[in-house]
Amino acid sequence: MSTRLLRAAVVGTGFIAPHHVEAIRRTGYGDVSLIVGSDRERAVSCAERLRVPRATTELGEALGDPSIDVIHVCSRNGTHESITLAALEAGKHVLVEKPMALDPDGAARMAALATEKRLQLGVAFTYRGYPMIRRARSLVRDGSIGAVRLVQGGYLQDWLSEPTDYNWRVDSIEAGRSRAMADVGSHWFDLMEFVTDERVMEVFAETRTAIPSRQRPLNDVATYEAAIGPTTQIAVDTEDEAIIVMRLASGGIASCVLTQVSPGRKNHVTLEVSGSVSTLAWNLEDGPDRLWLGKRNRAEILQRAASDAAPILGPDPAPDGVSEGWTGAMRDVLAPFYAAIVGVVLPGAITSYPTAEAGCRALVFVEAALASASSGRWESLG
Amino acid sequence: MSTRLLRAAVVGTGFIAPHHVEAIRRTGYGDVSLIVGSDRERAVSCAERLRVPRATTELGEALGDPSIDVIHVCSRNGTHESITLAALEAGKHVLVEKPMALDPDGAARMAALATEKRLQLGVAFTYRGYPMIRRARSLVRDGSIGAVRLVQGGYLQDWLSEPTDYNWRVDSIEAGRSRAMADVGSHWFDLMEFVTDERVMEVFAETRTAIPSRQRPLNDVATYEAAIGPTTQIAVDTEDEAIIVMRLASGGIASCVLTQVSPGRKNHVTLEVSGSVSTLAWNLEDGPDRLWLGKRNRAEILQRAASDAAPILGPDPAPDGVSEGWTGAMRDVLAPFYAAIVGVVLPGAITSYPTAEAGCRALVFVEAALASASSGRWESLG
Amino acid sequence: MSTRLLRAAVVGTGFIAPHHVEAIRRTGYGDVSLIVGSDRERAVSCAERLRVPRATTELGEALGDPSIDVIHVCSRNGTHESITLAALEAGKHVLVEKPMALDPDGAARMAALATEKRLQLGVAFTYRGYPMIRRARSLVRDGSIGAVRLVQGGYLQDWLSEPTDYNWRVDSIEAGRSRAMADVGSHWFDLMEFVTDERVMEVFAETRTAIPSRQRPLNDVATYEAAIGPTTQIAVDTEDEAIIVMRLASGGIASCVLTQVSPGRKNHVTLEVSGSVSTLAWNLEDGPDRLWLGKRNRAEILQRAASDAAPILGPDPAPDGVSEGWTGAMRDVLAPFYAAIVGVVLPGAITSYPTAEAGCRALVFVEAALASASSGRWESLG
Amino acid sequence: MSTRLLRAAVVGTGFIAPHHVEAIRRTGYGDVSLIVGSDRERAVSCAERLRVPRATTELGEALGDPSIDVIHVCSRNGTHESITLAALEAGKHVLVEKPMALDPDGAARMAALATEKRLQLGVAFTYRGYPMIRRARSLVRDGSIGAVRLVQGGYLQDWLSEPTDYNWRVDSIEAGRSRAMADVGSHWFDLMEFVTDERVMEVFAETRTAIPSRQRPLNDVATYEAAIGPTTQIAVDTEDEAIIVMRLASGGIASCVLTQVSPGRKNHVTLEVSGSVSTLAWNLEDGPDRLWLGKRNRAEILQRAASDAAPILGPDPAPDGVSEGWTGAMRDVLAPFYAAIVGVVLPGAITSYPTAEAGCRALVFVEAALASASSGRWESLG
Repeated sequence: MSTRLLRAAVVGTGFIAPHHVEAIRRTGYGDVSLIVGSDRERAVSCAERLRVPRATTELGEALGDPSIDVIHVCSRNGTHESITLAALEAGKHVLVEKPMALDPDGAARMAALATEKRLQLGVAFTYRGYPMIRRARSLVRDGSIGAVRLVQGGYLQDWLSEPTDYNWRVDSIEAGRSRAMADVGSHWFDLMEFVTDERVMEVFAETRTAIPSRQRPLNDVATYEAAIGPTTQIAVDTEDEAIIVMRLASGGIASCVLTQVSPGRKNHVTLEVSGSVSTLAWNLEDGPDRLWLGKRNRAEILQRAASDAAPILGPDPAPDGVSEGWTGAMRDVLAPFYAAIVGVVLPGAITSYPTAEAGCRALVFVEAALASASSGRWESLG
Repeated sequence: MSTRLLRAAVVGTGFIAPHHVEAIRRTGYGDVSLIVGSDRERAVSCAERLRVPRATTELGEALGDPSIDVIHVCSRNGTHESITLAALEAGKHVLVEKPMALDPDGAARMAALATEKRLQLGVAFTYRGYPMIRRARSLVRDGSIGAVRLVQGGYLQDWLSEPTDYNWRVDSIEAGRSRAMADVGSHWFDLMEFVTDERVMEVFAETRTAIPSRQRPLNDVATYEAAIGPTTQIAVDTEDEAIIVMRLASGGIASCVLTQVSPGRKNHVTLEVSGSVSTLAWNLEDGPDRLWLGKRNRAEILQRAASDAAPILGPDPAPDGVSEGWTGAMRDVLAPFYAAIVGVVLPGAITSYPTAEAGCRALVFVEAALASASSGRWESLG
Repeated sequence: MSTRLLRAAVVGTGFIAPHHVEAIRRTGYGDVSLIVGSDRERAVSCAERLRVPRATTELGEALGDPSIDVIHVCSRNGTHESITLAALEAGKHVLVEKPMALDPDGAARMAALATEKRLQLGVAFTYRGYPMIRRARSLVRDGSIGAVRLVQGGYLQDWLSEPTDYNWRVDSIEAGRSRAMADVGSHWFDLMEFVTDERVMEVFAETRTAIPSRQRPLNDVATYEAAIGPTTQIAVDTEDEAIIVMRLASGGIASCVLTQVSPGRKNHVTLEVSGSVSTLAWNLEDGPDRLWLGKRNRAEILQRAASDAAPILGPDPAPDGVSEGWTGAMRDVLAPFYAAIVGVVLPGAITSYPTAEAGCRALVFVEAALASASSGRWESLG
Repeated sequence: MSTRLLRAAVVGTGFIAPHHVEAIRRTGYGDVSLIVGSDRERAVSCAERLRVPRATTELGEALGDPSIDVIHVCSRNGTHESITLAALEAGKHVLVEKPMALDPDGAARMAALATEKRLQLGVAFTYRGYPMIRRARSLVRDGSIGAVRLVQGGYLQDWLSEPTDYNWRVDSIEAGRSRAMADVGSHWFDLMEFVTDERVMEVFAETRTAIPSRQRPLNDVATYEAAIGPTTQIAVDTEDEAIIVMRLASGGIASCVLTQVSPGRKNHVTLEVSGSVSTLAWNLEDGPDRLWLGKRNRAEILQRAASDAAPILGPDPAPDGVSEGWTGAMRDVLAPFYAAIVGVVLPGAITSYPTAEAGCRALVFVEAALASASSGRWESLG
């Protein structure tokens, strides 16, 4: 028999919020009662389109509603900390978009409060939800890769590759002092530590603002969309691209390349882990449901299978040979979070969701990388 | 503002039925009120797991319920016609799994009744829902391919590759006289006629039962799952593999290879259309969100983009560079079907869903192929 | 110590002849003394460019020269038989380009004479020389594939895709009654029988002349090159494309698609062999040094390694991870032919070259396919 | 008419020397008169196998022979400088394997002497010979990529991935203070500067000896081969892997990953250049005859074509759709070197070969990277 249906409020009406609504429903554990937005019209329209019963501009309406169990924080980066703290104070479980805060201290305050209140606090590191990422983690854990020698990869995008591209993420006031590293680098970092079970000890970073001046539209622009209407020229102080070198606790070394200005690369996430026994490689754009596994004398392709699926309360996994894609990955990151709330212990590799600790780590990483880019030296993650 | 929420009943509790439930909800146009199953326990358990309010073993309960607008027929092939006819008689719109009937005459009866009753009757040719399949169709229509010269492809699976593999589809009483051609060949045929806008006039087929005798478990086996428990040896009279050659109305020729016994091929659907101007190639397993487009002097890769998405009442399409996969394709086949019911005219390439006519065509194709395999000659689709 | 250096004369000055010259030298067993061409100027220029000591327009000069051991017949299809017979009569070993004759009877006469004269007679089925083709053959032979169930593939080109493309191969007088089947289909057929160790018993073929009328230049056009100068419109009576279905001796079935008018496909040769144990797939354009090997529970990629190399008298094979390509394949088809002449027994899978028997088989196949395309029925290979 | 045939002596009898012999012959400009080896038996056997007329252990025999025009230095790294200087003093042109010397000073001495003597001095950066590398360079030069923003790639091997793997390159006395960076990194660096026309100004490097202790066989081991017989344990002081970050003259940044201990990676060379207009990506193992070209709104695949070929005095380039591979690349690096000696001006992108200046740059790069790995700071290439 299925468990009690949890009720969520989703804060935010941008690109990602509706995907949270759908993913919550698809986990089988929850539904959405309320959309909270800063603009009334957008909030109402968003709720109607997604058939969410209510919309509001008052966060308090969500926090004061005893039927609501979970708050999803999908608003702009600069608001994550305050909303999360308020939600935890109100006794709500929280799932917050990445980066969970603007700096490690903020993240630490959020984590501490969640622990104190004994509430679940999760971070939306979506890529953990891909079946072959969980398989990759298992391969590392069961010794199939051996001692990790070298990790490499990157996250390449092109949606900001023109000087006419603009989005609130470009503004350091709203989005924080780092862009490429915070926005896509934090995803890569979490993926890497999740898969390898390693800890990055020190980083060296080189960053660059390839487009130092952009056309800012006077009206708002949605993520991934083109600006329309009059613009004003602004100076940009956050990085478009970064190269980061890492030293791992086990002695291995790692490298990642991050950019939001590489034409033709959309969401090109790659991760390659080379160990003393074999090498694994994953590539989001070329086939996220495959894992290349190289050994000295042969290479294998591992393909997603039903047994890699997360135990959601829904349909059986899609058949072998087809994909559940990014939307499936988001669902499978939320599923263990919701399961944890209702006390369901999930089997296998999917017992856990990305916690506040992981969210903190990612911010500490970005902070250290910013420091290194400035000092020209190795910086410790402290 | 969104339209009235349509209510559906889903008949069937096997592998595919829950995917219909989820896809209906994700279209934004509908929800599911009732699960109808032949076994009470399975029906109740299925409904609970999917949080569908009610379950029954009585089809009449669905047909007699005026709040129910749509019936999804996801039961075994042999039952499709009778359930569909009953549902149409009761004034319900019907979405039926493929093959829509056991033979073309049955399909014709269903189509005629739907027309008479002015009800929507759709067939679940899921692969039409892939964004790059719609793009492929557009390329053919706008002249980018030129006159179609040669079409080729196939549908290869391995889930019946061992003599110990068994499923009700192996039994010609329950599933019809054709297996590989009816089960996966009908998908390929529909995809081909949909993309190329061609009509197959004549077919030549060679079929083969590579595993003429199988272990049938005394208990039921779900699709794609392994049998457990005691078995009995049975003779198999439906084909495991087929090669079909086709003559197209425009003068072009075509070929497809179908098998359910090819180790390592899971759902390996391929379609290549070669014309006087360029060639397009699509491959489900290697990357359904890409289309290879070859010209004399260069090749291009076209990638899924937001503009390829179907206009569902839900989240915006997933970002460029990631996939919505098979579950997204199923949602996008149902969306225009539901939209048609509420009278919403969808823009662009997605104005239509696979209709009864397409379902009939597929059965006529299988029938002609069976005749050819027996006669060793070309047979007309009549 | 190395063996006596064999001396060859190469008949022909078109595209392929110089590649024979180079491949002969690279085997380490031979060198070229003489170029024989129909046009003096071209023969001299070809010899100079390739640093071959002599050139002539008289075949007799080659046949009468006792220092010459081998004749390579690289002239137009229609001349293969007469030149080969004359060379064999003169006591020369012969390596002839495919198709070895215009019909099976001609090929049989050539084979008979070679046997009578105890001379080596080889056919240039170049693709056998790819290392992973030899590996594929070994996999079939050692049982790794199991009983062959289904074979499929094709050979797709685009160099004749425009009505303005012309070459002597288009003319049935010079090139024979079949074009796509004789020119590229014979390659595919040989590759298939070589890899699978199967014998095709019956064929069904559908052929089509997609471009029934072409611009023939008044001047000669080299293979793969564009025509220049005035042209005349001619009717074409050989096929541009063909689909062939086959029944194999073991009971398996096979299919191939052949075309010379598919834009973007250059030399797109594919071969997929599906058996009761596993499936292997090879693709010339996408990576000839790889073999995909699919099993029920996983897929492997086998890569060319040094141990796959033919034992030429030259450098060690290129390192793992890089290719020796088409030129290497040609060298490795000639190597066992030359080794056989000097009586060297080569180890492993490369003990043999494509013999007259294989060349005959390919012509019998084309003949049966032509008959079937005309009769609309299965035709036996007799 | 063809030019005078140049005569070469090849110094060395290891893995690469025979490939030089073959490539020299295939250029059409030269042949080999003499093999010079440190071991008489190996030299004689190598010469016989390759049908080179003479063998010697005396370098002087080559230097004193007026019929010899060119010396190829294929001996161990530590001997490159002295042999090259002696050959230049003797008035011979020299083609030296990389790294051209053990340090930049040695390389500078070699370059200076070649200039003084007005002799050609080339370095065997083989990868420049791939057709699509030349095409990539053209794309950068003609503005198709735009301003270079980010360059990334690497060179991954596995032939030293086990502690039991050994080769003279592991010994810093014979091979120099750097291994992965000097051996494969110098290839990557040259390729990058060649393609991008950029100059690396500063580097930051992190290196690691993943296998600090190896089994050294008491007998010699050939490159890429396994050791046989008794071994002794030795400490290794050269790096197995390295990550290098670069600042380019134009303001762009770059990154490469180098390893010889990554299981399953054979000669995995990758290069991705991202600019303000488009991004190009090349991958040696996955398909060296293709170039991925990404733009904001679409991606293209460029394929090798005849027009990319180097103008050798031999056969026409292999047909479209097939490869000439690594052996073809080596030939096409030697062709412009030999052409330069006879004063032939080659057209197009292939007018030049990798000169001493390029060889020096690679050593300066390795030297700066070693310094950075030690200082933990950016180091200038001076």
